[in-house]
Amino acid sequence: MEKTPKTQPDWKSKLHEIIYEADTPAGKLFDIVLLIIILLSIVLVMLESVASLYSKYHDTFYIAEWVITIIFSIEYILRIISINRPRHYIFSFYGIIDFLSTIPSYLTFFMGGFNFLFSVRALRLLRIFRILKISRYVGESNKLVGALKNSKAKIFVFLFAVLVITVIMGTVMYMIEGPEHGFTSIPLSIYWCIVTLTTVGFGDIHPVTPLGQFVASIIMIIGYGVIAVPTGIVSAEYSKSMQPKPATNTQVCPNCAEDKHPDKAQYCHKCGYKLND
Amino acid sequence: MEKTPKTQPDWKSKLHEIIYEADTPAGKLFDIVLLIIILLSIVLVMLESVASLYSKYHDTFYIAEWVITIIFSIEYILRIISINRPRHYIFSFYGIIDFLSTIPSYLTFFMGGFNFLFSVRALRLLRIFRILKISRYVGESNKLVGALKNSKAKIFVFLFAVLVITVIMGTVMYMIEGPEHGFTSIPLSIYWCIVTLTTVGFGDIHPVTPLGQFVASIIMIIGYGVIAVPTGIVSAEYSKSMQPKPATNTQVCPNCAEDKHPDKAQYCHKCGYKLND
Amino acid sequence: MEKTPKTQPDWKSKLHEIIYEADTPAGKLFDIVLLIIILLSIVLVMLESVASLYSKYHDTFYIAEWVITIIFSIEYILRIISINRPRHYIFSFYGIIDFLSTIPSYLTFFMGGFNFLFSVRALRLLRIFRILKISRYVGESNKLVGALKNSKAKIFVFLFAVLVITVIMGTVMYMIEGPEHGFTSIPLSIYWCIVTLTTVGFGDIHPVTPLGQFVASIIMIIGYGVIAVPTGIVSAEYSKSMQPKPATNTQVCPNCAEDKHPDKAQYCHKCGYKLND
Amino acid sequence: MEKTPKTQPDWKSKLHEIIYEADTPAGKLFDIVLLIIILLSIVLVMLESVASLYSKYHDTFYIAEWVITIIFSIEYILRIISINRPRHYIFSFYGIIDFLSTIPSYLTFFMGGFNFLFSVRALRLLRIFRILKISRYVGESNKLVGALKNSKAKIFVFLFAVLVITVIMGTVMYMIEGPEHGFTSIPLSIYWCIVTLTTVGFGDIHPVTPLGQFVASIIMIIGYGVIAVPTGIVSAEYSKSMQPKPATNTQVCPNCAEDKHPDKAQYCHKCGYKLND
Repeated sequence: MEKTPKTQPDWKSKLHEIIYEADTPAGKLFDIVLLIIILLSIVLVMLESVASLYSKYHDTFYIAEWVITIIFSIEYILRIISINRPRHYIFSFYGIIDFLSTIPSYLTFFMGGFNFLFSVRALRLLRIFRILKISRYVGESNKLVGALKNSKAKIFVFLFAVLVITVIMGTVMYMIEGPEHGFTSIPLSIYWCIVTLTTVGFGDIHPVTPLGQFVASIIMIIGYGVIAVPTGIVSAEYSKSMQPKPATNTQVCPNCAEDKHPDKAQYCHKCGYKLND
Repeated sequence: MEKTPKTQPDWKSKLHEIIYEADTPAGKLFDIVLLIIILLSIVLVMLESVASLYSKYHDTFYIAEWVITIIFSIEYILRIISINRPRHYIFSFYGIIDFLSTIPSYLTFFMGGFNFLFSVRALRLLRIFRILKISRYVGESNKLVGALKNSKAKIFVFLFAVLVITVIMGTVMYMIEGPEHGFTSIPLSIYWCIVTLTTVGFGDIHPVTPLGQFVASIIMIIGYGVIAVPTGIVSAEYSKSMQPKPATNTQVCPNCAEDKHPDKAQYCHKCGYKLND
Repeated sequence: MEKTPKTQPDWKSKLHEIIYEADTPAGKLFDIVLLIIILLSIVLVMLESVASLYSKYHDTFYIAEWVITIIFSIEYILRIISINRPRHYIFSFYGIIDFLSTIPSYLTFFMGGFNFLFSVRALRLLRIFRILKISRYVGESNKLVGALKNSKAKIFVFLFAVLVITVIMGTVMYMIEGPEHGFTSIPLSIYWCIVTLTTVGFGDIHPVTPLGQFVASIIMIIGYGVIAVPTGIVSAEYSKSMQPKPATNTQVCPNCAEDKHPDKAQYCHKCGYKLND
Repeated sequence: MEKTPKTQPDWKSKLHEIIYEADTPAGKLFDIVLLIIILLSIVLVMLESVASLYSKYHDTFYIAEWVITIIFSIEYILRIISINRPRHYIFSFYGIIDFLSTIPSYLTFFMGGFNFLFSVRALRLLRIFRILKISRYVGESNKLVGALKNSKAKIFVFLFAVLVITVIMGTVMYMIEGPEHGFTSIPLSIYWCIVTLTTVGFGDIHPVTPLGQFVASIIMIIGYGVIAVPTGIVSAEYSKSMQPKPATNTQVCPNCAEDKHPDKAQYCHKCGYKLND
C-alpha cells in the first residue's frame, strides 16, 4: 500500500500516512475524528433547517459552522500538501466533494445566497464513504453493487417496462378522471401512476369515478407483479453468489489444447493424450 | 435475414433494408431518428395536457403535432410501399399501431372530438418496442416474459385468490363500516380492499369503527403473505433459469467404467481409452 | 371415479354424473352454466349495494335475486336427491355453503332484516371453488397451499413477532403522540402500527411530533425487514419445490436391510452383498 | 436439565420444577395459567387506554390491575425463593422484566405519575417469550434470528445506504419544495423520504411542485430496488439453510475406482470390494 516514493520529505510521508491511510494508530484516530466531525456537520445542517431551532440558536449554529468549515479547510490543504500529485487528488471524486464541503460557508460569507448552498453542504455526507472504504463492510457492499451490476440489463428492461406502464396508464387515467378529479395533466397522472405502482399511495390524488377506481385496481394488481421483479432479480443474484463456484480446473491438454477437464482427469477426453499433473 | 426476392426493384429492396432492418448504417440512423421522433411525440402529448403550457404555447403544439403526424404518415406509406406483402404489414400488430399513430390528428382536423383521441396518440409509445426489438435487451426481456409465462398457472391461481379475498373482505367491510364511513357500496369496498391488500393505502377511504380497523388489520396481515407470493414465484423462476443444467451425459468408459465425461469427450479422462460414440 | 353403486336408479346415477362430475359433456355444460350463474349472483349482490343503481333498478334486482335463488334451490334439492348419502353432503363444507346461498332470500322474504344477510349472499363466491376443483389449476393451488403449510411454524413465529412489535411500538407511539395527535388509545395505536409496518400507510393517523416521527421511521425501517421475511419464506419454499427430488432408489439389501443405495449400485455398500436388480 | 443440587429442601426443588420448568403436568399448568394472566394484563392495559371504556369501567380496571400486580408480585417472590442463586435471576433479562411488570402499580399508588408507567406495563408482553422459549417454535425463530445474524454485515450496509439516500434526498426535497409545501425542515424531509422509500406513503406531506414530484418519482423507483435488497438477502439465506449439504465423501474403491460412496459405506456398491476406512 506504500506508494509514496522515498525522495519526498519525511514529514510529508508521515502526513500522507495519517491522512490517507488507516494502518497506523494515528491514521485510525484521524479517520475516527474526521468521521465524528462529518456526522456533526451533517446534524448541524439538519438542525439548522428547523425554523424554531434556528431562531433560538442562531449564533451557536453560525460559530459551529465556521469551526467545521475551518477544520475541513485545513484538512483539504493538508491533503493537497501531503500528496505527490495534488492535481490528481483535486479533480478526483473525493477531491471535489472535499472542496464542496468547505466552499458553501465562504460563498455565503462573501455573497449571501443561502438556500442553494444548503444542499451543497449536505454533500458532506458523501465524505463518509471515503472513511468507510477502509472498513470491512466494503466486501458486503461490493457484493451488493456487484449483484446490481450483474442485473444491469434486467434492471434496464424492468425500468423501461415501468416507464411504459406508467406512461400508458397515466394517460388512460387522465382520460378517465380528468382535471376535475385532481388528474390535472398527463405528467401528474404519470406521477400518480408511479405512486400507485410502487405501492406508496400518498392519497393526495386518488381516483373518484368507478371506472377510474377499476383501472386503479388493475394498476395496483400489476404493481404486485412489478414489485416482484426487482426482488426476484436480487434474490436470484444473491442466491447465485452464494452457491459454490463451478470447477475451475485450468488443465489444458498439451496435445490438442482442449480445456475444461474434470478435476481428476488423467487423460485428455478429446485426443486421449496423457495430461501433466 | 434477407427475405426480399431478387425480382423486386432495387430502390424497393434498399428502402426495405433501411426501414425494416438495422444492419446497415442507414438502417441504424433511420431507427435512431425514428426513436427520437417517437419520444418527442410522446413528450408533446404529455406537455399538451398541462393546462398552463397549452394556453401559452397553443400554436407551437399545433404545428409540432402536424409535423410529427406528416412524418409518421410518410413513414407509414413508405413501409407499405417497400414491403412485398403490404396486407401482411397493415394488419400486423405494429401496422395497426403505426396507423393509430397518424390517424388522431386527421380525425381531429376533420371532425373535432379531441379528448378520446388524446389517449390514442399515447399509443405511439408502443412503437418504441419495434425499434428496441433489435437491441440487446431483448434477451433479458424474453427471460422476464419467459419467467412470467412459466408461472402462468401460478399467477392465475394467485390472482383468483386475490379476487376472492377482496370480494369477501370487501363485502365484510361494507357490512361493518357502511355508507356512513365512506364504504358506500360493495364495489367501492372491494376497491378499498385491493388498495389495502396491495399495501398502496391511499387513505381516501379508511375504517373508522374499532371492528372495521380490526378487520382491516387482518387484511393487511394477509396482504403481507399475499405480496410474498408473486415475489416468491418470480424469485424461484429466476433462480431456476440461472442454475446450470445437470449433466446428462451417460457415457461410461468401457475400459475403467469412469462416467461423467463431458459431452464432447472422445477419450476417457481417466485411462485414456477411446470412448464409443 | 364412478362411486355410485349399481343398485340405484338409472336417472339418479345419470343426475349424479351431471351434477357432481365433469367428465361427460352434460356434466361440463352443467358446471359452466352454474359458474356463470354464480358469477351473475355475485355481480348482482355487488351492484345492489350501489345506492344509485338500487334505487333505479330496484325491481330488476328483486326479480333477478329470486330467479337465482330458485335456481340454486332446485340445484340444492337435486344434489340431495342424486346422492346416495344425502346427510353426508348436507353437512359437508360445500353442502352448507350451498344451503347458505339459497336461504337469505327466503329469510328476507319472511322476516325482513336485510343487512346481515347481504354478506351471507357474498358467500356464494365460495361455490366457485367447487367447480374449479375439477380444473387443472388445482395442482398449482395445492403447491401454493403446500408451500404455506410447510412454512406453518415459520409463519406462526413471524405473525407472533409482528404482534409483539406492533403491541410494543403501538404503546410507545401512544405514549409519545397521545390522544391530542390522533393516537386516542393503545388499540388504535396498534392498528396504526400495523398500517405502518405493512407499508400500507393510509395517513388517517400520522405522527406529528418530531420524536413520534423518529420512532415511526424506525418502525418503517423495521417494516422493511419484516416484509422480507414472508417473501423469503415463500421464495425458499418454492425454490425447494422446484428442485429435483433426491434419489428415491428403494433398493434394500437382502442381507443387512441397508437402504439409500445409489441408483447404479450392484453391491450393498454396507455388507458387500450382491443386490437384486 | 435437572440443575438443582440435592442439598436444597424438597419443597424448594419442587417449586423450582413448577415455576422454571415445563416437563411436569404442574409445570405445564403453571406456564399456561401464567400465559393467560400475562395476556389478560396486556389486554387490560390496552382497554384502559380507550377513554370511553376507562371512564365507564374505571373501578373494574383498578381492581383487575391490582389483582394482576399481586399475582405477579407473588410469582416474583416465589421465583427468588425457589432459585439457588437469586442474584443471578434478579439481574437477568427476565428478572428485570418480571420486576418491571409489578412495580408500576406500586409506584402509581404511592406517588401518582401515571403516563410514563403505562408503557412500562406494556413490557409485560416480553414475559411471554420466556414461556414460549420452551415451545417447539424456538427452532424456527432461531433459524429466523440465525438468518438475520448471518446477514448482519449485509443489513448494516443496507441500512447505511438507506440512511445516505434518505439524508441526501431529504435535503434535496427540502430545497425543492421548501417550508411552504409542508417540508418545513430537513429532518422532516428525511422522515418523508423514509415514508416514501419504504412505500408506506402516509400522504400527510407530499410534493406539490412538478420538480418535487419528479424527484419523488425517482425516490419511489429507487425504493423499488431498495425494498428488494432485504427480501433478496432473507430469501437467499433461507434457500441456503434449506439446501442439502453436498456430499463430501471422497472414498474411491481400490478395485474399480468407483466414487461417490455414501458416508457409511464399507463395501463398494459397484464391485462389492471392501473399502479402506
